[in-house]
Amino acid sequence: MKFSQLVGERFKERPADCVIDSQALMVRGGYMKYVANGIFSQYTPLRRVCRKIETILREEMERIGGQEILFPVALPGSLWMESGRYGSVGKELLRFQDRTGTPMVLGMTHEEAAVQLVREYAQSYTRYPFMIYQLQTKFRDEARPRGGLIRVREFTMKDAYSFHTSQEDLEQYYNVCLKAYQRIFARVGLPEVAAVASDSGMMGGSLSHEFMLLTPVGEDTVVQCPQCGSCWNMEAAENIVENADPHPDQPLSLVHTPNIHTIEEICEFLHMPLEKSCKAVVYQTQKDKLLVIVFIRGDLEINETKLTNYLQDEVIPAEITLECGLKAGYIGPYGLKVKGAYKMLFDHSLKGTKNLCCGANQEDFHYTGLNIQRDCEDETTIYLDLAKAKEGGICPCCGKHSLTVSRGIEVGNIFQLGTKYTKAMGMQYLDQEGNSQFPLMGCYGIGVERLAASICEVRHDMYGPIWPISVSPWEVHLCCVRSDHPAAKAAADQIYQQLVNLGLEVLYDDRDVRAGVMFSDADLIGIPVRIIVSPRNQSKGNCEITLRDKSKTEIIPLEETASIAVQWVKKLKEQLCQ
Amino acid sequence: MKFSQLVGERFKERPADCVIDSQALMVRGGYMKYVANGIFSQYTPLRRVCRKIETILREEMERIGGQEILFPVALPGSLWMESGRYGSVGKELLRFQDRTGTPMVLGMTHEEAAVQLVREYAQSYTRYPFMIYQLQTKFRDEARPRGGLIRVREFTMKDAYSFHTSQEDLEQYYNVCLKAYQRIFARVGLPEVAAVASDSGMMGGSLSHEFMLLTPVGEDTVVQCPQCGSCWNMEAAENIVENADPHPDQPLSLVHTPNIHTIEEICEFLHMPLEKSCKAVVYQTQKDKLLVIVFIRGDLEINETKLTNYLQDEVIPAEITLECGLKAGYIGPYGLKVKGAYKMLFDHSLKGTKNLCCGANQEDFHYTGLNIQRDCEDETTIYLDLAKAKEGGICPCCGKHSLTVSRGIEVGNIFQLGTKYTKAMGMQYLDQEGNSQFPLMGCYGIGVERLAASICEVRHDMYGPIWPISVSPWEVHLCCVRSDHPAAKAAADQIYQQLVNLGLEVLYDDRDVRAGVMFSDADLIGIPVRIIVSPRNQSKGNCEITLRDKSKTEIIPLEETASIAVQWVKKLKEQLCQ
Repeated sequence: MKFSQLVGERFKERPADCVIDSQALMVRGGYMKYVANGIFSQYTPLRRVCRKIETILREEMERIGGQEILFPVALPGSLWMESGRYGSVGKELLRFQDRTGTPMVLGMTHEEAAVQLVREYAQSYTRYPFMIYQLQTKFRDEARPRGGLIRVREFTMKDAYSFHTSQEDLEQYYNVCLKAYQRIFARVGLPEVAAVASDSGMMGGSLSHEFMLLTPVGEDTVVQCPQCGSCWNMEAAENIVENADPHPDQPLSLVHTPNIHTIEEICEFLHMPLEKSCKAVVYQTQKDKLLVIVFIRGDLEINETKLTNYLQDEVIPAEITLECGLKAGYIGPYGLKVKGAYKMLFDHSLKGTKNLCCGANQEDFHYTGLNIQRDCEDETTIYLDLAKAKEGGICPCCGKHSLTVSRGIEVGNIFQLGTKYTKAMGMQYLDQEGNSQFPLMGCYGIGVERLAASICEVRHDMYGPIWPISVSPWEVHLCCVRSDHPAAKAAADQIYQQLVNLGLEVLYDDRDVRAGVMFSDADLIGIPVRIIVSPRNQSKGNCEITLRDKSKTEIIPLEETASIAVQWVKKLKEQLCQ
Repeated sequence: MKFSQLVGERFKERPADCVIDSQALMVRGGYMKYVANGIFSQYTPLRRVCRKIETILREEMERIGGQEILFPVALPGSLWMESGRYGSVGKELLRFQDRTGTPMVLGMTHEEAAVQLVREYAQSYTRYPFMIYQLQTKFRDEARPRGGLIRVREFTMKDAYSFHTSQEDLEQYYNVCLKAYQRIFARVGLPEVAAVASDSGMMGGSLSHEFMLLTPVGEDTVVQCPQCGSCWNMEAAENIVENADPHPDQPLSLVHTPNIHTIEEICEFLHMPLEKSCKAVVYQTQKDKLLVIVFIRGDLEINETKLTNYLQDEVIPAEITLECGLKAGYIGPYGLKVKGAYKMLFDHSLKGTKNLCCGANQEDFHYTGLNIQRDCEDETTIYLDLAKAKEGGICPCCGKHSLTVSRGIEVGNIFQLGTKYTKAMGMQYLDQEGNSQFPLMGCYGIGVERLAASICEVRHDMYGPIWPISVSPWEVHLCCVRSDHPAAKAAADQIYQQLVNLGLEVLYDDRDVRAGVMFSDADLIGIPVRIIVSPRNQSKGNCEITLRDKSKTEIIPLEETASIAVQWVKKLKEQLCQ
């Protein structure tokens, strides 16, 4: 392809509205164009990156026995009513009516469609196991799209669904799929992507993993143990605390604490560490509008996903009004009086603690010497793990104080769904004994555009992306510096033809522009192998070959250029497959 | 791929709700499954057919300089407001609101998105011409989906958009694209598809062609001239009539015609041919509710597309009420009195006619001896071509009485859009003299699933599809009759491995089922080359190779089977490319 014909603009300046590098570079490089909030059109370079990712996804899905199918984008609402998700999923499910008034949705995931497709086919155990997958447009009406292609409303997804007759078979295939995902991420040039145990959220089911690419711009938080190699999404990371206190029990004492409202202020006032405080956090549930008061050790934060999972209801921070009887800033577990219905929960971090400070449920007063068991516990007391894990915390696997907390982009996920959807939608098969059973499902997703942007995010320099050869829009970028110079132009033309004849994908910059413009555009396109033909080198019978990551540059004879380029491309491909 | 693992059911019986053969065979063969009205999921065999079509489409678009891009499925309503189509297109444009209440549409075609993508890029004449294309899901909220995949609400489309700086350049590229389309249809096995001049409809622009596959189940009507090779869609076919009447003028005479209402009845009563009658057809316009009375020669039918184009408003048959003053069954052009606003139009077929019969605008009376010019014409009289062309009619190109009328499926279309969208959306470029100009556009569409179904519709027998090798889900169907017979099974296994190693796409039926079931399933999958390994042939060191269309069967040695299969596949491919 000739660069002079490539549709799309390239800019020097970083667009003001771009918050992360991949977004800025992909807008500057003519990869994509904003159409609406979280909705983009793709120019050819991005389309080519995505198609290469799609090809790798197809190959790896076929390799583990997947059969490509296609579900509709627009689905009847009745299918989602069958599973119950029509009502249970929030506004990110785009609901609309067709011309006849029939409720429809835009598919944000296709479990229902998968069950509908195979429900009649798979009525005998002999049909199992099997896996179907598609590459299709998804729509999620996100409240806050962000980061260019990282969180969008419309995107392409590879989603796969497997069906099994036993938990063992599901687990075995789940692990096969986990390994396929590791191959996929290695093949697209991201071998560092980590499989992280995660919360299943609205998908349901028991076990799930997210594949996390660690980068400071990620919107997920990953908890890792470098000691034993375990990983969790923060949402699913168990928090373990040691509450042993060798000091003798102090009595509960009321302390006058005027104008002191936060847990930090009271600890400072009393010269106590945050660990020796009991903090109250008050929520309201979305469906039932129930007041939920959570007590937690003062140094810890609430993991709202854990709380939501326990309550089976979304929570929002409660507005503490005079009517409920709570004294904002002075709420404590001893002598708490609430008007109206409420729920009180204790985080595990408070179990067995003593000598704590906490609010006294009256304006300008706190207690010291709180002993949870002695002062608060009765048969109704509920202890739960509701806290976020923290840096240096205890690993639930190996027990060491080794946890690290970092940011990551979720570039894929896999779920053991169990019988959630097959039961809800009445999909059954006859087992070997002739008994009706519900099959078990697994589902496995990778977002194509997000993966492309994630690669760019961790494989770029200040000048542009540095695409891995496997997903690069083209394999070789040929620059003819001074296309007005007949001999140089002729040499470049010849190399272009040779490279194309050898089956390489070449972007050939034959424009009559300054070398600076040509090279900065080449950096923005980010093709790993670059060949530069200039009058000076050409007059000596040479040209320059260089890697986009600047790690290697050679002056080579013109007549060997095509074969050397083939070797360089081949070597880059081999490095990726290692 | 092993047949035993192929997800999807096959049925013996033709489903009752299937109106055309391709639909029945593709449901019976496990190609697709109904999800909602006009919405289907695709099983693997159909997905493979469609992907092969998509590959051919990509190759031919790239060959004529197309650059693959991707537009969103969900588009902001504001884009369609810019072009004016948000208001002008009917209910087939699915409009909805996102979570913020912003108007959105599901893309049914992407002219607006194309202009939005390149509006800033293409501000200089030096950028032109260029063509961008995509393969993407389209949604059209059709009132009456029908014929399985022939008319659906959701489908995959290859849509391409070209941009030009002159009408000559647009026309030149339009012809390049027309030839690419002819190559595409030849490559998918439909060389008989004809380019037919058509009406531009809601797309706007001047010249357009539809690519028609002639088949009795088509929902379009095609007018052809076998003498000169011209073709039109009925909607766009000019109707030419000869009105010469050598007989002397008769005077206008009132005739009592009690209980005679239709033009056929009056002609029979008066012993006159239909050609000597003047028929009235009354419509109402949709927007303005204007009464439109069209007079036309009694033997001809109104072409409502021509009428709509003239009126720039949709028409529906009018309900003739007492208030309007019209006498249903007795409406004629002489002495017509209408209460309220109306428009009177004459079809060309009446120009210069005489000695006609027609309604006398009073109950139970007609006229004979009507001479349109003498009795009806004044300076306000409007003659228009508003009639459908008919079998044996006059060809507008060669003037012979040679027209034929047949049914066809539209499998592609190309439009010269001109500046309709660039003007409406303010896309301009600076020409060589520095003047602002609106670029001209062409657009070019092919529906993937409809093409797949159309191939099936004209390439099948009573047992199943007969796929052309280029789009067949697999290339070779290997049947092991009696997979419980160890020697036969071993021979089939070996051939399977050999074929796969040679790079052929093989569906291997290794199921333990009766030969009848195996062969009828193979017919439903419709793979052109079939190899049958049975104990009887295997014991003689042979197997059978046969073509799906039953035109050729040979007994060949087992050890030569793989190489012979390669030759057969190669030969089928060569036949298609001729």
